[in-house]
Amino acid sequence: MTHDVPTIQDIREAAGRIASHAVRTPLVTSPVLDALTGARVFLKAENLQRTGSFKFRGAFHAVSMLDDALRQHGVVACSSGNHAQGVADAAAILGLPATIVMPKDAPDMKKVRTKRLGATVVEYDRYTEDREQITQAIAERTGAALIHPYETIDVLAGQGTAGLEAAADLDAANISLDRALICAGGGGLMAGMLLALRDTYPDIAVHPVEPDGHDDQRRSHAMGKRLGGNNGGASVCDAIVTPMPGALSFSICQGQVAEGLTVTDEEALAAVAFAWRELKLVVEPGGAVALAALLSHKVDVRGETVLATLSGGNIDPEMMVRALATAKPAT
Amino acid sequence: MTHDVPTIQDIREAAGRIASHAVRTPLVTSPVLDALTGARVFLKAENLQRTGSFKFRGAFHAVSMLDDALRQHGVVACSSGNHAQGVADAAAILGLPATIVMPKDAPDMKKVRTKRLGATVVEYDRYTEDREQITQAIAERTGAALIHPYETIDVLAGQGTAGLEAAADLDAANISLDRALICAGGGGLMAGMLLALRDTYPDIAVHPVEPDGHDDQRRSHAMGKRLGGNNGGASVCDAIVTPMPGALSFSICQGQVAEGLTVTDEEALAAVAFAWRELKLVVEPGGAVALAALLSHKVDVRGETVLATLSGGNIDPEMMVRALATAKPAT
Repeated sequence: MTHDVPTIQDIREAAGRIASHAVRTPLVTSPVLDALTGARVFLKAENLQRTGSFKFRGAFHAVSMLDDALRQHGVVACSSGNHAQGVADAAAILGLPATIVMPKDAPDMKKVRTKRLGATVVEYDRYTEDREQITQAIAERTGAALIHPYETIDVLAGQGTAGLEAAADLDAANISLDRALICAGGGGLMAGMLLALRDTYPDIAVHPVEPDGHDDQRRSHAMGKRLGGNNGGASVCDAIVTPMPGALSFSICQGQVAEGLTVTDEEALAAVAFAWRELKLVVEPGGAVALAALLSHKVDVRGETVLATLSGGNIDPEMMVRALATAKPAT
Repeated sequence: MTHDVPTIQDIREAAGRIASHAVRTPLVTSPVLDALTGARVFLKAENLQRTGSFKFRGAFHAVSMLDDALRQHGVVACSSGNHAQGVADAAAILGLPATIVMPKDAPDMKKVRTKRLGATVVEYDRYTEDREQITQAIAERTGAALIHPYETIDVLAGQGTAGLEAAADLDAANISLDRALICAGGGGLMAGMLLALRDTYPDIAVHPVEPDGHDDQRRSHAMGKRLGGNNGGASVCDAIVTPMPGALSFSICQGQVAEGLTVTDEEALAAVAFAWRELKLVVEPGGAVALAALLSHKVDVRGETVLATLSGGNIDPEMMVRALATAKPAT
């Protein structure tokens, strides 16, 4: 690929390359959710993806695209835990060693599952150390190929396959989409899905959804330039707490996305509880923010057909119990 | 319908009648599950059905088929909680009052959700009182139409739609099925699905799966006659603890089903935990017995393509915590 951003053709090719290992995840519907929102909602259930999040798509695609010279010293990645599992599983499938740089305070489930996939886990302090520097240093010392979570075309083309599947399923049923709400950290899923969805639905409105206080996507797109400066501190949405939008995803999404939406920790946890009680799906807080934005009426979707991502499901039991304890049973 | 058992045409017509209200549930796949079983497994995720179990299919179909004269005094049903919600929701959709006879020790979630759907709940003691008598008495006193959970053709035709969908999805992908494992209480889901699956896959082996000590299906099919005499006492699998196979489902399944499989409470809870951790699905113990039978290798499925039902997801948080606490993380 010699161009600067992935094309729809890149995404289609990625879909072919990941097909024998990734799960073609369903679009989940719920009459209760439709009644609460006044919309027809389709949830792209990437919590049901291999490794429990959409990250397997981009990770497997990127690792599979490495040539033999690049593969020989294995792969390295930094991740709060979902890209970690994606890269670890991809490396395991392809027979490569993997080193993953993860924050000390990542959920236990994410650390355990990454190690179980055979990766070497290097922990760092999310609040005092720079994960990019640590990862880069390992890559230079070992010669391992760096698989960035959202700054490469191959990763974004892989994430875009989630949008390709959603559009194909809906289009086959003659269903048109008005709007998509996408959980956004670095923005790789949003950028990939935007490219894929626009190919079928040129006028679809695409919103990034983030935690309050970690709204770098919202602010950056509002200002037309990449901004850091999140001031939210700790968040239950560990999967999507990133310092600023990725350069590649921002270049794709700039001028193309609708207003950024944000939700509080309480709203994210209420969505986790709603998913548990009403949808019978296990969703982690960071993977539930798009659902939370719908349940909290952050944008008027009445009468519309809406796609929202459930981007991951790797939640510790303690956090699930907390969500169920704090949220009212009948949303 | 003038015949004694539902035909494939009845099931097709039922599918058309429930289509605008029921969820067309996905077949969930998992590379981890495939690796553990050595099979290609498709899980019919009826925990994602409206009301959280397959019971909505048959309940809505049966209530919708009542003529005006039968509808005028509402409906009554007995149920440990899933048929309860199905009937309550069906009655609410069609504007009828519903009375549901439920055991005192039914999971809280099932009682709360049934009441929330507008039904009047009458509790009884599962171990000392006869639910059929209580329900019949209410029907006679009030004139309400009795919606039995598995003794009517309309209910079974509705449950069969789950099999129709699974066969249609798999057949469209040119996938053949060797075997189906179906959670069995009264046997309505099994009977309906058997009829539907055999239409596409004439040679498929269909197993009822039950809790140890509540294996009336296994014993009845082995002996060729309906047997009671379960001696299992309390079970975590409340949804499928029934005194003996239903007469209608037994007449359909007699001589047609493969060996009945049974699982312990511990195996059912391990499957609940596996579904939570690995599949990211909320499944109740009684809805997890078919998965439990696969995970516990109760039948050799290596090299086969297998369908298993996840028949319901209405589990209390306390039971989920118990399942997660008792089961090893890496199955």
